Amino acid sequence: MTARTEYVDVSGVRTAYRRLGRAEGTPLLLLQHFTGTMDNWDPAVVDALAARRPVILLDNAGVGASHGATPDNVDAMSAHVIAFIEALKLPQLDVLGFSLGSFIAQQIAQRRPELLRKIILVGGCPPGQGAATFHQVIAAVADKSGADVLLQLFFTPTAASQALGMEFVQRLRFGDERGPNPPQQVFNAQYQAIADWCEAPFDAAALRTIRNPVLVVQGSNDTMFPTPQSVLLFDSLPNAQLSLYPDSGHASLFQYPALFAEQANYFLN
Amino acid sequence: MTARTEYVDVSGVRTAYRRLGRAEGTPLLLLQHFTGTMDNWDPAVVDALAARRPVILLDNAGVGASHGATPDNVDAMSAHVIAFIEALKLPQLDVLGFSLGSFIAQQIAQRRPELLRKIILVGGCPPGQGAATFHQVIAAVADKSGADVLLQLFFTPTAASQALGMEFVQRLRFGDERGPNPPQQVFNAQYQAIADWCEAPFDAAALRTIRNPVLVVQGSNDTMFPTPQSVLLFDSLPNAQLSLYPDSGHASLFQYPALFAEQANYFLN
Repeated sequence: MTARTEYVDVSGVRTAYRRLGRAEGTPLLLLQHFTGTMDNWDPAVVDALAARRPVILLDNAGVGASHGATPDNVDAMSAHVIAFIEALKLPQLDVLGFSLGSFIAQQIAQRRPELLRKIILVGGCPPGQGAATFHQVIAAVADKSGADVLLQLFFTPTAASQALGMEFVQRLRFGDERGPNPPQQVFNAQYQAIADWCEAPFDAAALRTIRNPVLVVQGSNDTMFPTPQSVLLFDSLPNAQLSLYPDSGHASLFQYPALFAEQANYFLN
Repeated sequence: MTARTEYVDVSGVRTAYRRLGRAEGTPLLLLQHFTGTMDNWDPAVVDALAARRPVILLDNAGVGASHGATPDNVDAMSAHVIAFIEALKLPQLDVLGFSLGSFIAQQIAQRRPELLRKIILVGGCPPGQGAATFHQVIAAVADKSGADVLLQLFFTPTAASQALGMEFVQRLRFGDERGPNPPQQVFNAQYQAIADWCEAPFDAAALRTIRNPVLVVQGSNDTMFPTPQSVLLFDSLPNAQLSLYPDSGHASLFQYPALFAEQANYFLN
């Protein structure tokens, strides 16, 4: 399924997004990972979700085809997403946040709970684990590029996981819509935001305020935001369901797109 | 869906079982919890599973409508189930073990892996947690009977979980087929088996030999075999998927029969 890129003025920032899928139903907004754009969503996941509901992809401020500065903190990223939701006049929506996107989803749920119906957090973590692990895994791919980075960061070293990772890479299609920000600026700002999120103190009380139904999904062996952090999210959220997948890393949803879409669609319906 | 009780001679023991559901496909054998009989399976779960596959319910030796002695150890219980599978000439099957049934399923997978295709473990644990928790939760219902025991042991204290527990209790239909063993004898023998299982040492290497796909399901707040034990099962099994459900106790599959059946059917298909 393809959709043309649209633009909306959000707080003076030309913001790129795409709508696809069904016309009726609660829209599902997808919030992307570190350095990712709309094109980094696995078509196998997006199409399976869009078959059942409206789906909205977004390049947040300063990312991909959007203009504006890339914020160096999750606060400002969340504020831009909230302003985007308001600009599109969406009364309520579901949200799927993957990795950095899961941090933004947690913040929106705490600040503007009335905007959200159901929440899916994949490859995420609450604040509090410290940034050492993140520094290490990113440093370990400093000499890699392209698909090699995705295969190392997103999948496990087993032959089975790497083969499914290669299938994911081959499903991706990158367009040529680019905003003014060079990728290195996006990288630096988002890197700072993630490190600060991880270094911030764990706040169980803040998580307990999120009353929405939440589906927490994670691979068995995420090296970036380790799997026990997703168990902690599940334990801390008052209305959460947890799914952990076998022999999988950070991008469990892209390794098992059919399983993930099945669980996500059932949860959202 | 109802099915008449059939009997088969298994190692000289008149053994009761029921077949229901589709004629075609890999049969799914259900192994029941402490003191439970075939009638203790939630019809909402059994019917949803049987709509997609053959389902076999079993009263293990000395339980319910079956004759013979109730063994006081998981070894002998597993041996009888293996002999039952062979008596029915089933070349391979799937198994769903709930609570005590999950212990038997783990043992069959280690001893006769070729008999099993896929495995679902609900409300289970590996050996090694110690028996103190089990002693406590059973002692705490010593002055209760009937539905009150199920509501306390199987569900959480919240109003929502108790209401879903009452719906489960009302779905149950008990027949009058009874074998010669008095319930107290079943209770005593199975109690010993469970306590010994919990007191046995944790054996990660034994779990790693189970190569079958395994779906581990547990409530967020199981008080009998606490939820982290299911995370440990997931971590120790080489090909496992984990699902934890919100605000639920030992009988997560009976609190959320539609969700459980959806995940179980997808996993088995």
